[in-house]
Amino acid sequence: MLYFESDYTEGAHPAVLARLCETNMEHVSGYGEDKFCDAAKAKIRAACNAPDADIFFLVGGTQTNRTVIAGLLSPYQGVIAAQTGHIAAHEAGAIENSGHKVLCLPQTLGKINAHDLRDYLETFYADESHDHMVQPGMVYISYPTEYGTLYTKNELCAIHAVCKEYKLPLFIDGARLGYGLASGASDMTLPDIARNCDAFYIGGTKVGALCGEAVVFPGGNAPKHFFTTVKQNGALLAKGRLLGVQFDALFTDGLYDTISRHAIACAEQLKALLTAKGYSLFLDTPTNQIFVILPNDRMKTLGEHVKFCFWEKYDNEHTVVRFATSWATDPADIDALAEIL
Amino acid sequence: MLYFESDYTEGAHPAVLARLCETNMEHVSGYGEDKFCDAAKAKIRAACNAPDADIFFLVGGTQTNRTVIAGLLSPYQGVIAAQTGHIAAHEAGAIENSGHKVLCLPQTLGKINAHDLRDYLETFYADESHDHMVQPGMVYISYPTEYGTLYTKNELCAIHAVCKEYKLPLFIDGARLGYGLASGASDMTLPDIARNCDAFYIGGTKVGALCGEAVVFPGGNAPKHFFTTVKQNGALLAKGRLLGVQFDALFTDGLYDTISRHAIACAEQLKALLTAKGYSLFLDTPTNQIFVILPNDRMKTLGEHVKFCFWEKYDNEHTVVRFATSWATDPADIDALAEIL
Amino acid sequence: MLYFESDYTEGAHPAVLARLCETNMEHVSGYGEDKFCDAAKAKIRAACNAPDADIFFLVGGTQTNRTVIAGLLSPYQGVIAAQTGHIAAHEAGAIENSGHKVLCLPQTLGKINAHDLRDYLETFYADESHDHMVQPGMVYISYPTEYGTLYTKNELCAIHAVCKEYKLPLFIDGARLGYGLASGASDMTLPDIARNCDAFYIGGTKVGALCGEAVVFPGGNAPKHFFTTVKQNGALLAKGRLLGVQFDALFTDGLYDTISRHAIACAEQLKALLTAKGYSLFLDTPTNQIFVILPNDRMKTLGEHVKFCFWEKYDNEHTVVRFATSWATDPADIDALAEIL
Amino acid sequence: MLYFESDYTEGAHPAVLARLCETNMEHVSGYGEDKFCDAAKAKIRAACNAPDADIFFLVGGTQTNRTVIAGLLSPYQGVIAAQTGHIAAHEAGAIENSGHKVLCLPQTLGKINAHDLRDYLETFYADESHDHMVQPGMVYISYPTEYGTLYTKNELCAIHAVCKEYKLPLFIDGARLGYGLASGASDMTLPDIARNCDAFYIGGTKVGALCGEAVVFPGGNAPKHFFTTVKQNGALLAKGRLLGVQFDALFTDGLYDTISRHAIACAEQLKALLTAKGYSLFLDTPTNQIFVILPNDRMKTLGEHVKFCFWEKYDNEHTVVRFATSWATDPADIDALAEIL
Repeated sequence: MLYFESDYTEGAHPAVLARLCETNMEHVSGYGEDKFCDAAKAKIRAACNAPDADIFFLVGGTQTNRTVIAGLLSPYQGVIAAQTGHIAAHEAGAIENSGHKVLCLPQTLGKINAHDLRDYLETFYADESHDHMVQPGMVYISYPTEYGTLYTKNELCAIHAVCKEYKLPLFIDGARLGYGLASGASDMTLPDIARNCDAFYIGGTKVGALCGEAVVFPGGNAPKHFFTTVKQNGALLAKGRLLGVQFDALFTDGLYDTISRHAIACAEQLKALLTAKGYSLFLDTPTNQIFVILPNDRMKTLGEHVKFCFWEKYDNEHTVVRFATSWATDPADIDALAEIL
Repeated sequence: MLYFESDYTEGAHPAVLARLCETNMEHVSGYGEDKFCDAAKAKIRAACNAPDADIFFLVGGTQTNRTVIAGLLSPYQGVIAAQTGHIAAHEAGAIENSGHKVLCLPQTLGKINAHDLRDYLETFYADESHDHMVQPGMVYISYPTEYGTLYTKNELCAIHAVCKEYKLPLFIDGARLGYGLASGASDMTLPDIARNCDAFYIGGTKVGALCGEAVVFPGGNAPKHFFTTVKQNGALLAKGRLLGVQFDALFTDGLYDTISRHAIACAEQLKALLTAKGYSLFLDTPTNQIFVILPNDRMKTLGEHVKFCFWEKYDNEHTVVRFATSWATDPADIDALAEIL
Repeated sequence: MLYFESDYTEGAHPAVLARLCETNMEHVSGYGEDKFCDAAKAKIRAACNAPDADIFFLVGGTQTNRTVIAGLLSPYQGVIAAQTGHIAAHEAGAIENSGHKVLCLPQTLGKINAHDLRDYLETFYADESHDHMVQPGMVYISYPTEYGTLYTKNELCAIHAVCKEYKLPLFIDGARLGYGLASGASDMTLPDIARNCDAFYIGGTKVGALCGEAVVFPGGNAPKHFFTTVKQNGALLAKGRLLGVQFDALFTDGLYDTISRHAIACAEQLKALLTAKGYSLFLDTPTNQIFVILPNDRMKTLGEHVKFCFWEKYDNEHTVVRFATSWATDPADIDALAEIL
Repeated sequence: MLYFESDYTEGAHPAVLARLCETNMEHVSGYGEDKFCDAAKAKIRAACNAPDADIFFLVGGTQTNRTVIAGLLSPYQGVIAAQTGHIAAHEAGAIENSGHKVLCLPQTLGKINAHDLRDYLETFYADESHDHMVQPGMVYISYPTEYGTLYTKNELCAIHAVCKEYKLPLFIDGARLGYGLASGASDMTLPDIARNCDAFYIGGTKVGALCGEAVVFPGGNAPKHFFTTVKQNGALLAKGRLLGVQFDALFTDGLYDTISRHAIACAEQLKALLTAKGYSLFLDTPTNQIFVILPNDRMKTLGEHVKFCFWEKYDNEHTVVRFATSWATDPADIDALAEIL
């Protein structure tokens, strides 16, 4: 069986695991107040070119979105997001459970744009009864998006400019940030991300770690008492070292970048193979997720040899499926897939 | 100045106020456990032809929606509504504040339909990852809708049938229920409403009362400990008599029905006048709200003599405004408006 | 039957009701933006000697506590209160339902004191792990307390001083504020209250109104977007006039004060009668609630002629009951009680 | 430096880490639907003698308490706990953040008892206004307690009997369950625990794992859609294998039991040493936490060589500190401590 089901089907990158093993019996304090977390934070601040950044290590993506949004919003505020944003669609109501409405904007290929955002805000404030509605309190976007697409630097700057004009913090969900930055289609670096938002997170779970997301407030602008907010949301790890050690390893010698590039190279190769074999792409995405339209019978026979992910029904005869590569993808598997196809 | 701004610009119907005055110094227990509430409930049960109905008197519409939805849903569930539903758009996030997502369906003239509802539910359950999403837990519709339109009996029955198939309680927001039932376009009675949903409320605030909404669970199917839920949501009135007395008056000698018919007759007359004078209707609605497209300069000059409600921008030269009639509308005001127009 | 069960067993003071009747058919805008609310606010500002005060009219006590506390706290904060505080014991978890812990202090006769408060805060901040706990975010007291007792001016000032030192807003629940200020045992005026806290409310429901509580932020220090918070908590009345008219009447010609003094005079007379007849007071309270220890058989026979409120079990042979007077108490009923006793 | 600060200062037990390394590159599905989780569940069911148990793997203690309680309660219900219960004191309001009040009972050495519980419930239901209060919806206890003490089997059965009588689920926080069961003072086994409650968790974080708590509903009685509740609370791990592999290792060849016994043996030795050296115990606890009263100057000098945990101020000259042992305690460190003392 070949595995292209998702980017979280293996454990940790061997270098990350090795670091966990080496440091395993060192005695350190709990709750993230240890030398491993400190070292990881220093390396992330350097990589982001954000020397004053506040950094917190959380465990998973939904948890991170929930906790950061709870920290940034007042109870009467909501979060603006694309209709296809992860927080809008796939987090089991975690945002609403903490009391906030997700205010949906239309999207194209998973992206919102500055024009629609401004239009939404102008319309909102022009409405004489806007005090009867949820106030927009922040903007959430994903990089890459849930469809594997990327904002250009210009697009991001334009969105950020609107946010600043309306005093709305901009938060970037970077569950797959490495795969976005490593794409040839990206015109941004980690410092570009840090400069053009108010909060973002560097995804570990899908990029080489067993678990873990590094939340960065680039300007040292963490919400007051955010540590307590993290604890209150059940997101504080007693053995914070587990996250510190992993991010320390990922940000040593450019590992995060290196393994992200590997995933992108594999994705490019896989995409080339699939199109060469005559498969239609549902979306032409530049990151590690490839969306393909399969005839239903082909999906069935292929499924006997290859694991991929059901995405959505295309029509009565076709289905959209997702192939994902990751730091763990074995290039040999792509060769094997070529054989099968 | 003529007043067509909304249906809550006056106090209570004189008969309601008279009843408050007559009963004012009678000593009764608090929290809705008094003879006035009992009498009102008995009359409402009779009017609904629902002898087993559980009835609770709450104070206002947003509060009622929030409290009933909080009572009917489990924390992991959301409420399905039209995108234009009051709970989706105009309640300041009251539903999300109590932890629940509003799951929006597309609408036509403010109405959802059974087909779209079934489609939504089928798609939801067909999605292999639906356990990662908010579970649909109930359906909310308004009668009349926020656009003053009405479901036909067939439409309502079809929606209710889907609800029953998926075991979802159907809740009808009846903030303007009287004006809906009194419309010539309505093919339903109060017992029809009661038979075709699991919960609804009879709006008092906009139909003759100072405040008050009567929540009806027609089958005696109130959520467990709903009294405590009402209290927890700040919706329990110490002097419950205030609501009991008013609903008792409204359901004595058909007053609720009579005053609703008056509002509809006025609205018909007003609509005829406006169209005769060449104004375009934005929507042709059969209840007490009339939506008109006004040229902006006309809106300005007219606004010096008549109060109406800004609804939304139509285009750069025109605006949609709402004229509302109510139990309190003076027919002389419509004659006066004819003069002005 | 004689009625001393509670202070909310009748409707509104006749002057309040008369004002509702007079103004009933005047056309005004909704949601508290009307001339009656404006007039009432102006009179309350004058009565409080707080010309910059922000004032909001809400409907009931639990709702007001819930909404004000939700407005003043961040999600990671709790509210300090006496163990016997209404929010701690009798509001069905309304505070927790909006996400906040009630942090209980010990009490004496329903009162907390500055010493215990400071001690609590010092201990909290001395605890090295206090970031793992709910942060104290405000202080709640009641005047009069749930036991009908009163803080002295010195006691209140001392509590307020600790609050200011720790930057905690002080909120006073004044559900029975009139009866507190009218007591001979009170050494405070309404301006004293306004000067010595950050938010308080003037109870209407129990002091002459059908419903309604006037929330005062004396320094114009209402939380940002408090109107939206009120709406979100289901506490915004469409016909805000209902509250404006009533508070306008209550603050015209000192009515609120006059009727409060009446209730206190009745309470004094009633207390004198009960003690003269040999009944033991459970607490010697200076306001409108009188707590008496009755032998159980006497409670039964007396209950055939007089309505009072079960408070708590005293011992196997005795029960504590509450007699309450109010603006509506008929002195003749006290004479009639004397006959019966 | 010697480390007795807490039981979460090292990584994972070497056998657990080895298993993570061995299985690291195996491809498995996410979200706990993998063979490692399945195997771990089977072993835990066997160890609990609860073949029908529903089992969920969560990440940390506060998160687990929050999520299980959110799953078991209706919004109008609260959770009964000891005043010293972790959920009452040290979880930053996580329970209140999900809308529920913690209803505190008095405690002795961290334990509540069946008599007080029944008394609480009888008093609650005897109160005529109990519908105005938070309804008790479940009972929470810890084994061992926050003070390291243990319920006897009789005590637990008595509490469970009251719970059953009042239809309240009993939930046991087992963050240190291994250390409780391994104590010579325990008269219970894992199957005894499973038989005498409705939900409990087996703590991994403090007993050999990097992170992880195994929630067990012994009778297959997980709340409906608990998977979605877990997701909504941000407690669902994409790489569920991380938890499955660790619990599989911990429940292979009795490892969980073996390493727990090691911690207890070390604690006994440490306690003997401390008392032999003349230190006073604050509490005589039979598990892995030892509470000692230290003169303040001694605390300072000792602190230069030994890490322990500040617990609370004893008096002006003394402080209570906690020494904790764990699976990771090196007996040589106890010998080294003997030298220092």
